[in-house]
Amino acid sequence: MSAPNSEFRAAGTAVEKPKNPYGPNPEDFLSNVSRFQLIESTLREGEQFANAFFDTAKKIEIAKALDDFGVDYIELTSPAASEQSRSDCEAICKLGLKAKILTHIRCHMDDARIAVETGVDGVDVVIGTSSFLRQYSHGKDMNYIAQSAVEVIEFVKSHGIEIRFSSEDSFRSDLVDLLNIYKTVDKIGVNRVGIADTVGGANPRQVYELVRTLKSVVSCDIECHFHNDTGCAIANAYTALEAGATLIDVSVLGIGERNGITSLGGLMARMIAADRDYVLSKYKVHKLRDLENLVADAVQVNVPFNNPITGFCAFTHKAGIHAKAILANPSTYEILNPADFGLTRYIHFANRLTGWNAIKSRVDQLNLHLTDNECKEVTAKIKKLGDVRQLNIDDVDSIIREFHAELSNTPVVRPTQTGEEIETEVSISEPEVKKQKTEENQV
Amino acid sequence: MSAPNSEFRAAGTAVEKPKNPYGPNPEDFLSNVSRFQLIESTLREGEQFANAFFDTAKKIEIAKALDDFGVDYIELTSPAASEQSRSDCEAICKLGLKAKILTHIRCHMDDARIAVETGVDGVDVVIGTSSFLRQYSHGKDMNYIAQSAVEVIEFVKSHGIEIRFSSEDSFRSDLVDLLNIYKTVDKIGVNRVGIADTVGGANPRQVYELVRTLKSVVSCDIECHFHNDTGCAIANAYTALEAGATLIDVSVLGIGERNGITSLGGLMARMIAADRDYVLSKYKVHKLRDLENLVADAVQVNVPFNNPITGFCAFTHKAGIHAKAILANPSTYEILNPADFGLTRYIHFANRLTGWNAIKSRVDQLNLHLTDNECKEVTAKIKKLGDVRQLNIDDVDSIIREFHAELSNTPVVRPTQTGEEIETEVSISEPEVKKQKTEENQV
Repeated sequence: MSAPNSEFRAAGTAVEKPKNPYGPNPEDFLSNVSRFQLIESTLREGEQFANAFFDTAKKIEIAKALDDFGVDYIELTSPAASEQSRSDCEAICKLGLKAKILTHIRCHMDDARIAVETGVDGVDVVIGTSSFLRQYSHGKDMNYIAQSAVEVIEFVKSHGIEIRFSSEDSFRSDLVDLLNIYKTVDKIGVNRVGIADTVGGANPRQVYELVRTLKSVVSCDIECHFHNDTGCAIANAYTALEAGATLIDVSVLGIGERNGITSLGGLMARMIAADRDYVLSKYKVHKLRDLENLVADAVQVNVPFNNPITGFCAFTHKAGIHAKAILANPSTYEILNPADFGLTRYIHFANRLTGWNAIKSRVDQLNLHLTDNECKEVTAKIKKLGDVRQLNIDDVDSIIREFHAELSNTPVVRPTQTGEEIETEVSISEPEVKKQKTEENQV
Repeated sequence: MSAPNSEFRAAGTAVEKPKNPYGPNPEDFLSNVSRFQLIESTLREGEQFANAFFDTAKKIEIAKALDDFGVDYIELTSPAASEQSRSDCEAICKLGLKAKILTHIRCHMDDARIAVETGVDGVDVVIGTSSFLRQYSHGKDMNYIAQSAVEVIEFVKSHGIEIRFSSEDSFRSDLVDLLNIYKTVDKIGVNRVGIADTVGGANPRQVYELVRTLKSVVSCDIECHFHNDTGCAIANAYTALEAGATLIDVSVLGIGERNGITSLGGLMARMIAADRDYVLSKYKVHKLRDLENLVADAVQVNVPFNNPITGFCAFTHKAGIHAKAILANPSTYEILNPADFGLTRYIHFANRLTGWNAIKSRVDQLNLHLTDNECKEVTAKIKKLGDVRQLNIDDVDSIIREFHAELSNTPVVRPTQTGEEIETEVSISEPEVKKQKTEENQV
């Protein structure tokens, strides 16, 4: 949907970049899809993940890796949470990272006084505004909330550092209450206000509406925080940016309370589909896999098999009808380019769903020569065995070699049997793919 | 946002169910959020997952489990894919399941002839309509596509079974081409048309627009199929229903090509947040965990740690400020009720982020008596140890017992040390929670 803009710009130029159907919607005139920022919260929200215990050395290792990746802000656990949390916060502030360091506190002067002494670049203040949290958590009314907010904000501002005010459970808060308090804190000069889907129940169009409404009330930036209980945390983040939010809270692998928040990697996938140039200019996405492995090891989880980008099968193509097109042009079935992430694609041809185009490609790799009809014939043999049991590459290669030998009446040259297990996928390396495709760069 | 509406409605009635802030949007007058149906594709799309090899017995076991769960349709791999695929399709059709059985074929008479002989209740036909697929996959133009579609549809209809026509890569297809062909097939009487985000790049508002537009062109049902490459498959499904789609393609754990499609469990979470009564009336969601374990075992993957509903930490609460409210009323931090799924919630109190409310609850469970101030004091001790290393429940209980003994000058009664590893979370069983909370049923 970037067409109108690029057509306008292209008026004077001969060559035009093809339109990206997943690009920012030109109707969203407040959209920040192409200028979003990340508040990385693995060391705050992520610490609330069931398995997380980061010692000082691990926190520093993670903070440095996040900074190297290019995140805009790193958010740390409240220094009021424990003595070690406080000293770790100070230690990370002293690292001299490019990313700004934030800490996340309750809307309370006790916490604010400790926070401003740590050396952070900014303080993220949060208070529950829904009737649930007002009743069952802190028991305060909106007047009290507004008064505390003003006191804490002015105190933090007087120390010359950034301040964010966020509601908690924003989507179950009274809209008028919400807008009132956001307007109040905007007037006294917060850097940004935050919307939080604390229980993970919001849906994308609801997010769009609330952010658009808030955007008409405040002049400061809008930050959003989405939990993933109902699987919408990445989509909600994208929709918030479309509506005019600027900053998204993320964590590595989405770790956080319960099943977590918007994941850094998932949001990268989403944003690259919309504006690859912007994302690649800011973030070292080829380091995503190392970053995820670092955090996965630290909290003792496996990277989910279906993780965007880094799941083991994210670039594996299996169905026969897919393989043909992927071999001709990877963009037919890939919206992301694995090479951007230092990864490769796989054509999984050793199975009963395989097609003759995939097998023909394997025949070529084996440096054998078969006509298309011969490839179709050997494919039928492979599919027949694939119906009986799981195949591996050895199986397929044996069938192809035997078939080829029968045709040419030469003895089969078999590879040495080593007994080693061989993976059932083969990597199609970049040069091989390039040989076979015609228009790699067409989006 | 519930306040204005519920106050207004409350004027005439004494008792009213509180409005669900995550419920269907009344502006979406074509919404099917409260009458959606599932096309379960673990045995078709799921077979295209890298690790999947289902033998006949496993397919039958999965089909029966899906039927028992309550899915509306079960979609099977094309009988044209292999001989075993064909005979498995016939075998499943003969099981006499409540769910309707579909098979998924290319838009080709060869495939259609085989499909109608298997005994299926319907056939799902698909053809690539994007310029990518037209160029790199089948190489046909839109006229050819329309002609084949009409031929295949009339043939399938003549056998008295259901027929769906779907485009592939719909979001990169020319809108006019798409609407033309959908209009054509609608006129000749397909049961439904399908939209497919084959590369997983679509975003929710884009989905809403396309479904709304299509809804104004056709009179049949609309089915949607979303890949998850950019993490939006669940959100896109929800938004499609808001716009007027009726049927969503899902698979268990979302398994499919690359990192898969909308997951059955994730969509259940999303839909329960919107309309719990409808979902619980139709689907046996308490069997979700068993169903996911069945499929995870069959394809040799772990259920992702952050899976909606069944991830190991989906109902684990850790931060101190969360624990207080959760103990008072679980709805403060939970949009889903773990009991609906036969699961329980956990308050993770053995860590440095713990708060005195969580510890007080543990003190009560140990049948000890401490004042609030004493609880705060012992909490400080626990947090101090939690700063140094990961804690388990034993550690916390020892600190509490020692503290209590010192206060009362009685010797500490220690539990027997068995050397067994004890989990660091404790389950708060339903009766205990009920004692402490005031308004469980308020949404």
